[in-house]
Amino acid sequence: MTHSTVTIDLGNRSYPIHIGQKLLQQPALLTEHIRGNQVMVVTNDRLNALYGESVTTALSEHTVSVVSLPDGEQYKNLEALNLIFDALLSAGFDRGCTLIALGGGVVGDMTGFAAASYQRGVDFLQIPTTLLAQVDSSVGGKTGVNHALGKNMIGAFHQPRCVLADTDTLNSLDDAELKAGLAEVIKYGFIIDADFFAWLEQNLDALLARDSTALAYAIQRSCEIKADVVSNDETEQGQRALLNLGHTFGHAIESSSGYGAWLHGEAVAAGTAMAMDLSVRLNWLTDDERVRGVQLLQRTGLPVTPPEAMTSADFKAHMLRDKKTRDGQLHLILMKRIGHAIVTADFDHDAFEQTLMHFCKH
Amino acid sequence: MTHSTVTIDLGNRSYPIHIGQKLLQQPALLTEHIRGNQVMVVTNDRLNALYGESVTTALSEHTVSVVSLPDGEQYKNLEALNLIFDALLSAGFDRGCTLIALGGGVVGDMTGFAAASYQRGVDFLQIPTTLLAQVDSSVGGKTGVNHALGKNMIGAFHQPRCVLADTDTLNSLDDAELKAGLAEVIKYGFIIDADFFAWLEQNLDALLARDSTALAYAIQRSCEIKADVVSNDETEQGQRALLNLGHTFGHAIESSSGYGAWLHGEAVAAGTAMAMDLSVRLNWLTDDERVRGVQLLQRTGLPVTPPEAMTSADFKAHMLRDKKTRDGQLHLILMKRIGHAIVTADFDHDAFEQTLMHFCKH
Repeated sequence: MTHSTVTIDLGNRSYPIHIGQKLLQQPALLTEHIRGNQVMVVTNDRLNALYGESVTTALSEHTVSVVSLPDGEQYKNLEALNLIFDALLSAGFDRGCTLIALGGGVVGDMTGFAAASYQRGVDFLQIPTTLLAQVDSSVGGKTGVNHALGKNMIGAFHQPRCVLADTDTLNSLDDAELKAGLAEVIKYGFIIDADFFAWLEQNLDALLARDSTALAYAIQRSCEIKADVVSNDETEQGQRALLNLGHTFGHAIESSSGYGAWLHGEAVAAGTAMAMDLSVRLNWLTDDERVRGVQLLQRTGLPVTPPEAMTSADFKAHMLRDKKTRDGQLHLILMKRIGHAIVTADFDHDAFEQTLMHFCKH
Repeated sequence: MTHSTVTIDLGNRSYPIHIGQKLLQQPALLTEHIRGNQVMVVTNDRLNALYGESVTTALSEHTVSVVSLPDGEQYKNLEALNLIFDALLSAGFDRGCTLIALGGGVVGDMTGFAAASYQRGVDFLQIPTTLLAQVDSSVGGKTGVNHALGKNMIGAFHQPRCVLADTDTLNSLDDAELKAGLAEVIKYGFIIDADFFAWLEQNLDALLARDSTALAYAIQRSCEIKADVVSNDETEQGQRALLNLGHTFGHAIESSSGYGAWLHGEAVAAGTAMAMDLSVRLNWLTDDERVRGVQLLQRTGLPVTPPEAMTSADFKAHMLRDKKTRDGQLHLILMKRIGHAIVTADFDHDAFEQTLMHFCKH
C-alpha cells in the first residue's frame, strides 16, 4: 500500500500528513506519534459507527476511551467543548495523554482546542474524515469554537503530531459535503497556483466521481500549498491571510444565516464569487478570469451568490467583526489574476458598496 | 518615585514586572505596552470601585471598556470566562485589542486565558492586587480556569506584556489574604534560597505590619526566584515543578474542601508542612529543619495541618488526578534541606502512607 506524505515544517513541532487509501488499517502510522498510554478518541455517533472500531483496534496496546460529540456546527461551542474535558477528567487522564480527532472540521477544531487547553496542553492527532477537513483544518494548527456573536472567536494555535487523510473515508460523504470540500481545493488554485487551477478544470469530473487517484492528488497539492503558506507565517500576520479568500464574505453568510444552514465550503464559494466581483470593479481582475472562476464553481455545483434574504447592512455588520478587521479597518483578500490573490485594506470602498449592492436586493 | 523592575527573560516574549508604590499613577508604565486602541479591563466590582478609575484615567487616550466578573474561586470556570468573550464581542474588539487583568489570581488567570483564546490570542497586561498574585501568578504565564473535577485543568501558557505590582494595592487586603500571600513568599525560601528564608524569619513582623519597603523586597526576591526557575523551564518539564512545593497536598485540600473554603496560600502552607513531614520520614530533611519551617508558617498565622474532616483516601483520590501525575505515577516536591527541594516519583510509598495517617484521623 503506497501513500504520499506532506511534511508541515514547523521546527520542533513539524508533523506529517499521510494521504492515501486504507491508512486506518496501518496502526503504526498512529502509534508512532503517541507518547503515553492514555488515548481519547473524540468523534460523533455517526463516524464512531463507521470508523471507531478501526481506530480502537489500531490502538489495542493503549488505554482508549471514546467521547462522542453532538454532530453539527451549531454544537461547536464552549458547552460541547466541556464534554471533552468531562470525559478526560472522568477517565483520570493526565498531562501525558493524547487526543485523536476522528471526524470533520467541527470535531477537529474542537479536539484541537481541547488538546491545547487540557492541563494547558496535551498531544493530539487528526483523522479528518471530510474533504474539507483533509485539505483545510488538517494544516495550520488553527483550533477553536464559535461564540454566539462570531465564528471561531475562541481558540488557539495548536499543532497536531500527525494527520491521517484516508481517502476511503470520503466514500461516506454526501455529495454536498464533497462539493463543499472542493470549494476549498479550488481556492488554493485561485490564490496561488494557476497550474493547479487548470488541473482542476481538467479533472473536475473525476473528482466529482470520487476517483481516488484524483482525490489524493488534489488533497496532496492543497496541503502542499497550505503548508508553504503556513510555514512562512504561522500566526497569520501576512501571507497566510490569503487562505481566507472568500471567507470574510463567507463568514458573514454563515453567521447571518445561522451556523449550519450553509456548509462552510458553500459560503466560501459564494464569498469567492463576491471577492472576484469586487476585484473586477477595482480593475485588478479581468472579467474573463472572473467568469472562468465562477464557471468552475458552478460546474462543481456550488452557489455563487449569497442567500436572497441578506442585505448590504448584514454583510457590513458581520464583516467589521471579522478577525481580519484591525482597529476598525476591513482587510479583504482580493484577486489580481487567477493564481494571484493579495490581502489589502487599501481598496475603493465605493466599489465594495457596489459589489454588495450587486449581490443583495437592498 | 522609584521602583524596581524584574525582567522575565523569554526571548521575544520577555516582559517587565514593575514593583513599588503609586505605580497606577504612572500611565506610561501601562501605555507603552499597549499596541492597539481597544482596551478591556477585566476586574470585579470591589476592585473596580477601588482602582478602576485610576486605570481608566491612565488609559484616557484609548477606547476602554470594563467587564466585572463575579468575585471568588468558585466562579473561575468556563461559564464566567464566557462573560469576558461576551464583553469583547459586544464591544466589537478585534485581534489588536489588549486585555488588562485588574485583580487577584482569579481575575489574572481568567483574563490571561481569555487573552490566550480570544481570536486565538491577543495581548494582556496584569495589575495584580493581592500579594499572592504579585509573587505567583504574575510570573510564569500560567492561565486557566477550574473544572468541577479539578483545579486549573483548562488553560494555556500565555505571557503578559507587562506586570504592575503596586504595593499600595496591598493595603486593601484583609489579614487572611496577606498571610496567604506570605505562604507563597516563604515557599521560595524553602525550595531554593536559604538566605531569603533567613531574611523572612528576621523580617516577618515588618511584613505582617505591611511595611512597604519590606513588602517590595519580598515581592522582588520572590519574582526573581520564580523568574529564574521559569526562564529555564517554561512549560514545566523539570525544575519548574519545584514551585509546586506544598501544592499537590494543597490542591487536594482545596479540591476536597470545595474551592474557596480555604485560601490557596493556606492550603499550600498545610501542604508544605505535610511535604516536610514526609521528607523527614525519608531521612532527607532533619526534624530540626522541619520544626524551623513549621514555626515560620505558624508565626505567619498559617495552618500547618489539613482540615479535620479529610481522610487519607481523600488525599489519594485527589492527588492521583493532579497534573504532576504522569501515567498514574505520583510525583511530589520534597525537601532535602531548607533552600533545597527536589521533584521525584522515587520515594518510599509506606512513608507517604505514614504521613497521610499522621495528619488524617483515618
